[in-house]
Amino acid sequence: MSTVGQKGTYQDGERILSIQSHVVSGYVGNRAATFPLQTLGYDVDVINTVQFSNHTGYGFTDGHKTSPDELAAIFNGMAVNGLLTHPRILTGYIPSAEALSVVTDRIRRMKADNPSLIYLLDPVMGDIGTGLYVSRDVVPIYKEMLNLATIITPNQFEVELLSGIAITSLETLQNALEKLHTVNQLPHIAFSSIPLPISLVESLSLPAPPPSYTRLLPQPLPPWYDAVGTGAPDDEVLVCFASSWFDGQMETYAFALPTIRGYFSGVGDLFSAMVLAHFKDPKANPNLPPLPWAVSRALLTVQQILLQTHVHSLAQAEVFGTATPRPLHHPSDPLPADSVIPSDTELDALKPLNPKDPKRKARRMRLRELRVVQERALIQDGGEGWPGKRIDWTHISEQLEK
Amino acid sequence: MSTVGQKGTYQDGERILSIQSHVVSGYVGNRAATFPLQTLGYDVDVINTVQFSNHTGYGFTDGHKTSPDELAAIFNGMAVNGLLTHPRILTGYIPSAEALSVVTDRIRRMKADNPSLIYLLDPVMGDIGTGLYVSRDVVPIYKEMLNLATIITPNQFEVELLSGIAITSLETLQNALEKLHTVNQLPHIAFSSIPLPISLVESLSLPAPPPSYTRLLPQPLPPWYDAVGTGAPDDEVLVCFASSWFDGQMETYAFALPTIRGYFSGVGDLFSAMVLAHFKDPKANPNLPPLPWAVSRALLTVQQILLQTHVHSLAQAEVFGTATPRPLHHPSDPLPADSVIPSDTELDALKPLNPKDPKRKARRMRLRELRVVQERALIQDGGEGWPGKRIDWTHISEQLEK
Repeated sequence: MSTVGQKGTYQDGERILSIQSHVVSGYVGNRAATFPLQTLGYDVDVINTVQFSNHTGYGFTDGHKTSPDELAAIFNGMAVNGLLTHPRILTGYIPSAEALSVVTDRIRRMKADNPSLIYLLDPVMGDIGTGLYVSRDVVPIYKEMLNLATIITPNQFEVELLSGIAITSLETLQNALEKLHTVNQLPHIAFSSIPLPISLVESLSLPAPPPSYTRLLPQPLPPWYDAVGTGAPDDEVLVCFASSWFDGQMETYAFALPTIRGYFSGVGDLFSAMVLAHFKDPKANPNLPPLPWAVSRALLTVQQILLQTHVHSLAQAEVFGTATPRPLHHPSDPLPADSVIPSDTELDALKPLNPKDPKRKARRMRLRELRVVQERALIQDGGEGWPGKRIDWTHISEQLEK
Repeated sequence: MSTVGQKGTYQDGERILSIQSHVVSGYVGNRAATFPLQTLGYDVDVINTVQFSNHTGYGFTDGHKTSPDELAAIFNGMAVNGLLTHPRILTGYIPSAEALSVVTDRIRRMKADNPSLIYLLDPVMGDIGTGLYVSRDVVPIYKEMLNLATIITPNQFEVELLSGIAITSLETLQNALEKLHTVNQLPHIAFSSIPLPISLVESLSLPAPPPSYTRLLPQPLPPWYDAVGTGAPDDEVLVCFASSWFDGQMETYAFALPTIRGYFSGVGDLFSAMVLAHFKDPKANPNLPPLPWAVSRALLTVQQILLQTHVHSLAQAEVFGTATPRPLHHPSDPLPADSVIPSDTELDALKPLNPKDPKRKARRMRLRELRVVQERALIQDGGEGWPGKRIDWTHISEQLEK
């Protein structure tokens, strides 16, 4: 078989079916996943579960959902033409139980046709704080879908919902992951990020951010930059866990991430896409199992894009009259007033936001749209990955019991 | 204004609104335009006028159109959030007169807000051979839209329909272009490609394909390769015209292209996107006006992608049992039978295509999906452009009158 024209990255020739939301403007769902996956060389087939003007963080959104019948028709057209042979599937936000059932049914058949199909399921259901933002009857369907998935990428809210275990300690986290692995024959869980107090994280001795990330920090570090991990006891750090089940044992890696304050949309969607992109990379480091390898690559890409977006939004904020956060950590530090850009809350207190004129909020949101296009070189280049560490669960349990 | 994070290509910060069709699998409409534009650094806002499983060339397609009300709602959401400030707009296939009216109305308002808006209108209505493939009531709306457009990218059928002049000679072509320019105050026409007998083209002495193209030809040239321009009197060449109206005068450049036989979809959509991408490039050659510069860049990209797709589809054809064309030119050449891959028609004669099982046709179509993802480096790199030549209309008219 000739390979004429098939040069480039290792994924060349692989095809991903991505089923997520579409927004006309901005980067969430398929819009956050498709271009980065294509930049890495994947042909991406794109089923849009909604078509909205923009993501819901803008406060106002208009558009429509793809009905279950419309989804079924699309799948039918692909099936008739023999186009449902993707070796990889990615699913994100799907707006209703009926639509989710149509999708599940197809994935079940595709997996029956090809048992080695790699399916990354992002069980988009809600978040700590906002709670459930899909209809309640979606939850049991997601629980059934766990059996089909190769990898899931839940957040804390979703881990708790799917496992039925509230995460209040490393031990309850261990129980929740183990339950998901064993009850659902779920090989891989990339638990995207959970905020943990730095005191607890310190006991894990997780590595610091890598040079590929820190070299992107503005020099000198401006006072408004959200420095992280300065060691103060009230600091919070985000921790990502990559957990796989091998031969009756759970092997989990942990990665510590800087907290960047502010509302950014599509971060989880980009993360899921990048985990799928880098999972079972033939050029992977043989010393690192497939999931922690993929998570390490995904985290570096996501954190780089997030940092570039954050710095860009702060630098442009005054120009556009939009808001930027005060430093996250050490809010009581006596910084001179003019060295800090006022926070959204402070700006809104000075000049209350007219709910009928969401343009100021919209401009703020616009500046926080992920800069996946501008920073495409970072997606392509790869870098050294985000450093993580294998967790010794036994040791942790013993420590916690002391 | 800080430029933190704004590195990369010249288009950084520019935003394009692209209104076209979406297919889940394959590359036409927005799928052919979006990724290449993003690869060149544009943020692209994507309104999908349909969501189909695949393009209609597969013989079977399923999916749905975005209704005029749904389109209006999307525009409304964007307007409320102040997101309709694009400096560039691209429109392609829009499925109905009602939908087209919604789009036209918005573009008219956006142009009123920003008179320097660059609007590339691809008046997708039909083709020589297939005829009109949109509803007839779309035609008068497109005629009205010409007044809004900065550039249009019609094919021969559309030039004839919009101008009311049948193109049977270089002189009638001149009349048609001139009428479009003057009646509609239309600054730029990129007439994508018209097949002309080589004898007529020879009188124009157009330049040969550039090194960036010829270096991609398989070496040695296999017998099934569609060589072009060998000088035989019955050869056909495709000619693209880039015509601008300056100070009451029409300035037209012509570009000769190899004919690649076979049905490829999305070629015109990719061309339109690349013309818009490269139009008014600040780094353009000052000796070349904006439109011929953009067309020169667009043609090189399109021809490179098309050649790579063609070579790939031929090389893979036997593997997949799909068909490939016999050489286009000199079909009577006594080539040994086993040196030529049978044509689609020959294969279908041997084993008739079951209309209820379109998978063979689908596999053929699949192989001819534009390789925009695999060949993204060609899109990014730019190359030297496709060489063209300024036409001396007076001289041509005199020649033809002899």
